[in-house]
Amino acid sequence: MLAPRSHHLIDLALEEDAALGDLTSRLLFPCAHRSRAVIEAREDLVVCGIALAEAVFARVDERVRSRTLVADGAALRRGDRVLEVAGPTISLLTAERVALNFLQRLSGVATRTRRFVDAVSGTGVRVVDTRKTLPGWRALEREAVRCGGGGNHRSSLGEHVLIKDNHLAAAGSLREAVRRCREGAPHLAKIEVEVESLKEVREACAAQADVILLDNFTPGRVREAVKLIDGRALIEVSGGIRLENVREYALPGVSVISVGSLTHSAVAVDLSLELVRGRSV
Amino acid sequence: MLAPRSHHLIDLALEEDAALGDLTSRLLFPCAHRSRAVIEAREDLVVCGIALAEAVFARVDERVRSRTLVADGAALRRGDRVLEVAGPTISLLTAERVALNFLQRLSGVATRTRRFVDAVSGTGVRVVDTRKTLPGWRALEREAVRCGGGGNHRSSLGEHVLIKDNHLAAAGSLREAVRRCREGAPHLAKIEVEVESLKEVREACAAQADVILLDNFTPGRVREAVKLIDGRALIEVSGGIRLENVREYALPGVSVISVGSLTHSAVAVDLSLELVRGRSV
Amino acid sequence: MLAPRSHHLIDLALEEDAALGDLTSRLLFPCAHRSRAVIEAREDLVVCGIALAEAVFARVDERVRSRTLVADGAALRRGDRVLEVAGPTISLLTAERVALNFLQRLSGVATRTRRFVDAVSGTGVRVVDTRKTLPGWRALEREAVRCGGGGNHRSSLGEHVLIKDNHLAAAGSLREAVRRCREGAPHLAKIEVEVESLKEVREACAAQADVILLDNFTPGRVREAVKLIDGRALIEVSGGIRLENVREYALPGVSVISVGSLTHSAVAVDLSLELVRGRSV
Amino acid sequence: MLAPRSHHLIDLALEEDAALGDLTSRLLFPCAHRSRAVIEAREDLVVCGIALAEAVFARVDERVRSRTLVADGAALRRGDRVLEVAGPTISLLTAERVALNFLQRLSGVATRTRRFVDAVSGTGVRVVDTRKTLPGWRALEREAVRCGGGGNHRSSLGEHVLIKDNHLAAAGSLREAVRRCREGAPHLAKIEVEVESLKEVREACAAQADVILLDNFTPGRVREAVKLIDGRALIEVSGGIRLENVREYALPGVSVISVGSLTHSAVAVDLSLELVRGRSV
Amino acid sequence: MLAPRSHHLIDLALEEDAALGDLTSRLLFPCAHRSRAVIEAREDLVVCGIALAEAVFARVDERVRSRTLVADGAALRRGDRVLEVAGPTISLLTAERVALNFLQRLSGVATRTRRFVDAVSGTGVRVVDTRKTLPGWRALEREAVRCGGGGNHRSSLGEHVLIKDNHLAAAGSLREAVRRCREGAPHLAKIEVEVESLKEVREACAAQADVILLDNFTPGRVREAVKLIDGRALIEVSGGIRLENVREYALPGVSVISVGSLTHSAVAVDLSLELVRGRSV
Amino acid sequence: MLAPRSHHLIDLALEEDAALGDLTSRLLFPCAHRSRAVIEAREDLVVCGIALAEAVFARVDERVRSRTLVADGAALRRGDRVLEVAGPTISLLTAERVALNFLQRLSGVATRTRRFVDAVSGTGVRVVDTRKTLPGWRALEREAVRCGGGGNHRSSLGEHVLIKDNHLAAAGSLREAVRRCREGAPHLAKIEVEVESLKEVREACAAQADVILLDNFTPGRVREAVKLIDGRALIEVSGGIRLENVREYALPGVSVISVGSLTHSAVAVDLSLELVRGRSV
Repeated sequence: MLAPRSHHLIDLALEEDAALGDLTSRLLFPCAHRSRAVIEAREDLVVCGIALAEAVFARVDERVRSRTLVADGAALRRGDRVLEVAGPTISLLTAERVALNFLQRLSGVATRTRRFVDAVSGTGVRVVDTRKTLPGWRALEREAVRCGGGGNHRSSLGEHVLIKDNHLAAAGSLREAVRRCREGAPHLAKIEVEVESLKEVREACAAQADVILLDNFTPGRVREAVKLIDGRALIEVSGGIRLENVREYALPGVSVISVGSLTHSAVAVDLSLELVRGRSV
Repeated sequence: MLAPRSHHLIDLALEEDAALGDLTSRLLFPCAHRSRAVIEAREDLVVCGIALAEAVFARVDERVRSRTLVADGAALRRGDRVLEVAGPTISLLTAERVALNFLQRLSGVATRTRRFVDAVSGTGVRVVDTRKTLPGWRALEREAVRCGGGGNHRSSLGEHVLIKDNHLAAAGSLREAVRRCREGAPHLAKIEVEVESLKEVREACAAQADVILLDNFTPGRVREAVKLIDGRALIEVSGGIRLENVREYALPGVSVISVGSLTHSAVAVDLSLELVRGRSV
Repeated sequence: MLAPRSHHLIDLALEEDAALGDLTSRLLFPCAHRSRAVIEAREDLVVCGIALAEAVFARVDERVRSRTLVADGAALRRGDRVLEVAGPTISLLTAERVALNFLQRLSGVATRTRRFVDAVSGTGVRVVDTRKTLPGWRALEREAVRCGGGGNHRSSLGEHVLIKDNHLAAAGSLREAVRRCREGAPHLAKIEVEVESLKEVREACAAQADVILLDNFTPGRVREAVKLIDGRALIEVSGGIRLENVREYALPGVSVISVGSLTHSAVAVDLSLELVRGRSV
Repeated sequence: MLAPRSHHLIDLALEEDAALGDLTSRLLFPCAHRSRAVIEAREDLVVCGIALAEAVFARVDERVRSRTLVADGAALRRGDRVLEVAGPTISLLTAERVALNFLQRLSGVATRTRRFVDAVSGTGVRVVDTRKTLPGWRALEREAVRCGGGGNHRSSLGEHVLIKDNHLAAAGSLREAVRRCREGAPHLAKIEVEVESLKEVREACAAQADVILLDNFTPGRVREAVKLIDGRALIEVSGGIRLENVREYALPGVSVISVGSLTHSAVAVDLSLELVRGRSV
Repeated sequence: MLAPRSHHLIDLALEEDAALGDLTSRLLFPCAHRSRAVIEAREDLVVCGIALAEAVFARVDERVRSRTLVADGAALRRGDRVLEVAGPTISLLTAERVALNFLQRLSGVATRTRRFVDAVSGTGVRVVDTRKTLPGWRALEREAVRCGGGGNHRSSLGEHVLIKDNHLAAAGSLREAVRRCREGAPHLAKIEVEVESLKEVREACAAQADVILLDNFTPGRVREAVKLIDGRALIEVSGGIRLENVREYALPGVSVISVGSLTHSAVAVDLSLELVRGRSV
Repeated sequence: MLAPRSHHLIDLALEEDAALGDLTSRLLFPCAHRSRAVIEAREDLVVCGIALAEAVFARVDERVRSRTLVADGAALRRGDRVLEVAGPTISLLTAERVALNFLQRLSGVATRTRRFVDAVSGTGVRVVDTRKTLPGWRALEREAVRCGGGGNHRSSLGEHVLIKDNHLAAAGSLREAVRRCREGAPHLAKIEVEVESLKEVREACAAQADVILLDNFTPGRVREAVKLIDGRALIEVSGGIRLENVREYALPGVSVISVGSLTHSAVAVDLSLELVRGRSV
């Protein structure tokens, strides 16, 4: 069950890597040569993207059979196996790199997220993503964040209101901006306001924002803001959050901490495909 | 002059972020409200992706005018301006995040590449990418590597021969594998062999490989391999290369060092869009 | 400024109507023959889709110039002009039907919505759409609803929680279902519950649903529900709402009335394109 | 066996409704939870679009199995079952709305068409569609019209000649227009002329048009035209045809009545999906 | 004014040739280097595809300016100029091969068609294409045939009836097959029957086919068939028609000769692009 | 195992031929009517494109079963069978023409290539294609050339350097052009230079080009060039090569002869589909 856009991205990826097929494999293996292979973790990681990897093999050659050995979201140790595939050797090697590139990126996001989530464990604060995702990869990266134990912020510009400084300039006052949004926004949309000072926190409360985003606050200032808000709005903290300091921000009264780097600074984790001996899938 | 696939990726990205438009901006700005904005670096970086960013704004609204202030590949200091755009405010804010997401990723790759390139400066060794790129982004990331001063490895599976251990098992011997590839490959294709020991280096030389890829060699072993090869093949080093040790591998006789992490471990650099006062583009 | 998906739909539409060009016009007009034409309302209507219509002409032939004479959302009288286009006659006639088909459908949705909105005017209740839109037309029809003065419900399955009877069976109890959704849903997602009885209304209140959807209630029962809920949740009414009875449901305490027929029962309104004499656009 | 464009429209529709998956179902059902469901008619209708609905479920999740219970074109009574599907519950609920939206629209067209066809039953006159179809839906709606017992007019601008008033102005005279079209059109193309008076009927006869379209004639005038034409051309009637008056136009000598409202004024009929107990498909 | 599908084919073509840009030109020309170039005929030919060629240049780089020097359908002599383009040198050279590949193929079809048309000149018989066109190129090749002076047969399987031997087997008799098609086909569809003997010619006449296709008849047999048919049906001749014998088939009473080889055996004609000195477009 | 772009081209082809289905077959066969058919050669040919043909049938209707009777690259005699398909008759006839159009074109390229390959048999010289392929068909035609026993030149502008006269003008001298390319090109790219005189041959040798392309040389001049080059570069011959003279160019020292006409002048070979009696696939 892949998101519809995934099919698209798989085709783009195969197009760029395999539009002409795999020259080396074509020269070395007869068409009828078949192999079995496994994808395994080469470092500790949280895995994500297995169905995508399977779909890559199937798109290259529908004769490839695959068997999932763990589920997305599983924490794997170096050497754990993720997926077994069997079929024409040329097809397995043609799909290998694209399948791994998907898995390595998405598992990278999931693994990074898990570290942030672990860092605030026990606090009840949720770590969530932002819209700083790779163009074309939004739905996939959001799912990777969930596999890592994180939550999702708004998925696009279209569903919720998030008022930032550029918007405030236009509307004259924060209160007026919230009022206009409340009046015009769909009834399911929440109204969130990004604030940069305690003064703005007060205004946002007065304007009855649903969510107040404390941007670039120190932990101390966050504490003050929590007191000021006093339960009148859901509190989100963002800006300058790193793995080293995230727990300092996971304070009572804070609901979510949004971390752009879950996605924009995720790096690939190491997975590889190895041809193996023995019975097929 | 964008690669044809870029149009595709831009549409995917706008689809996922802006298929419903920008709710907040729509509620706060009249359609006729116009602004001017600049994208600027918020840290030192090598910029890449400016034409893509312009194309994002143009795709959202053809009335947006843009002016490029630096060229791809330029090394910018925090605060330097990259691009100026002017047009309907709603359109500028609708395109903002997607444009930045492209720029931040590609500039991240260029910036990381530049660090590796600087680390080997003066040695004459070229730092090149691998096929470990984001699915859908191959051509874009290859260009970012070039903007960073690096070079490109093969673009896909289809153009050159790269014989790895999985292939060797099938062919019986390295010599036989090279022979078959030479016979069958297009006359422009180079034959590269990945080796893991000095014994294999000797075999690759005997087989007259065009390029020998020393995989996971220590610098000392690389020196020995260079002596053995003695100019009979172009030498590529790969595996375990980090910014800290890359210069140790940039030895005489080595032509290229391929570094998967140029792309698979690149992180976003910081750029932002600010509405500004004053005359339009 | 078109939604990205619109380009797609325009291409599909031109493909199906004009892949081979317009045979009749090609036989009767020389390529160089140019005309001016206007699209005008042939009945009273609320217009929507003008930018789409312009884009259709531009896609057929970029030499076509267009001038918008009214804005989306305007209430037009029979005979009012919407859009003026000028260019090669063959191109104008090739684009005519597709442009009109878009305009007629979207204006039909807008016009129908306006009637519902007018029917509840002064009550403060908002009329909103549902997900019963034409496949491929979601964003367009939501905009048409707004042009008619209505509001939008959730845009997709992905952003908010709406618990229906099928879901309840699975979760055991409404309270448990709400609890699980609250725990797992993004912090911006609202939790809405569809209820079919006053008993379920009480349960939904107890479970602290954000929104309670009264499905197929009589106006009398809605009144009772409003009392029971007593401001603890936003109230939505749906099911069996027609133009004739919508006002009976627009009761104090009700926030929104969702009407599937805004889109699923909208019919085309009449607009036509006429070649005209005189100066060009 | 779907038209190639259908795959396209299915992807667009799933993209807009389910690009992020179904949040509610994901929160309430485990991945392994499976269900069976049936789609059934909730009013009397002529069904159309069953293969499309099946394809929607299959595209969401290839593990969904389906079984067609009636054929396209069947006249169903309220409560009749159309399609049974079984598979992962999350997948069934993710596909539900899109599958229903297709079925409801196309069955709406088929049902409306059937009413017109029934209204002229016994007269030998055929009721046909026009090009006033939903952009992107041409092939689908034409099929729905046939399911309702109607016929199809030309499918696009490319295959036949239909000369209207705008064309006449250009050609000088109707006779000259027909002559030029006859000379240039493919030998399989029929030449049809739209006329608005008996004078034009005479001209069209003299010009030897294959088909004469009587536009906005009263039944009385149609009778006169039939006499004038006297079998020399196929006669089509159009303009102002409603369910109430269509039979008045189904006169001896008239071959087809084309009715734009078969498609442009069709509304959705009511079908629903219900989870059911019992054995799977 | 390009057919919508053309944009698609242009993108595919640029994708396969220029997804990575033009390496050679990038290495040799600075981005700012500009040139002017002309495309000219290198043999006598009938040109077709000029707008496509222009669109290729524009898609590669919207800064490229172009000027058409002749019109599609013109008969050119070796050395005649077709199109002038000016812009960044890298862009001109990147687009060159794709633009020429389109022009060479389509002009090849037009040129081949013109030869057939010339061979029957004065007879009043029309030479038409078949559905034996390059997959993806139907609309383009049909236009090329018209540029060569030929006509078009049916554009697809969807618009007209063409009964062949495989169909006859199923229907029992030719007469019955025609009857069923007449009854079910759209009123604009013509009914054509492919016959292989004079006996079948008689049956087709009796069945009142609109068009009778004499398949693989000798000229003598065609004469007999013309007599038999005696104006009761339009006559098409096909099968084994070559440039050498086409005129023998262009007999009185024959309306069209359909020639698969107009497209399936067309070869590229020679056109080239040359950089030139002097003022820009 | 189809190249990703093939799916695309199949959809385009079905779209243009079968978007509305097959009218004739729909009128003559009930949906449940099933047939078996074979595709067979109607002349001697080298077959290519079988998997594509199968994919066309499967795309039209996944219920069609197919069985491959020979492999791509096989030399067939008139009457030999290529592919057997079985399934709903309407689906078989709907897919027929598109499947054949693919097979006929690609087998035409393979057959033509085989003739050139046979003409130089025993010489050790390889016949290769050029970039003069049908837009959209590059990967397919390259594979057809290999099926015919030929080899492939560079696949696109992106992978290798080929310096032509237009480039030389810009760089000042051939030597300087090669130097700049060597410095900037990827390490796997080969540097090829097109030369038109023995003087340029000398320069190219001095510049240490990897490959020297002798353009429009007579066989005698080729001999002289071979002597001059004396093994310092790989030698390619091109320009004016026809089946009649290709062997004269297959001289000792020449590695490859590139022949644009393998693709640009290939014509369709004759294959047909026949319904057959008997057991199904």
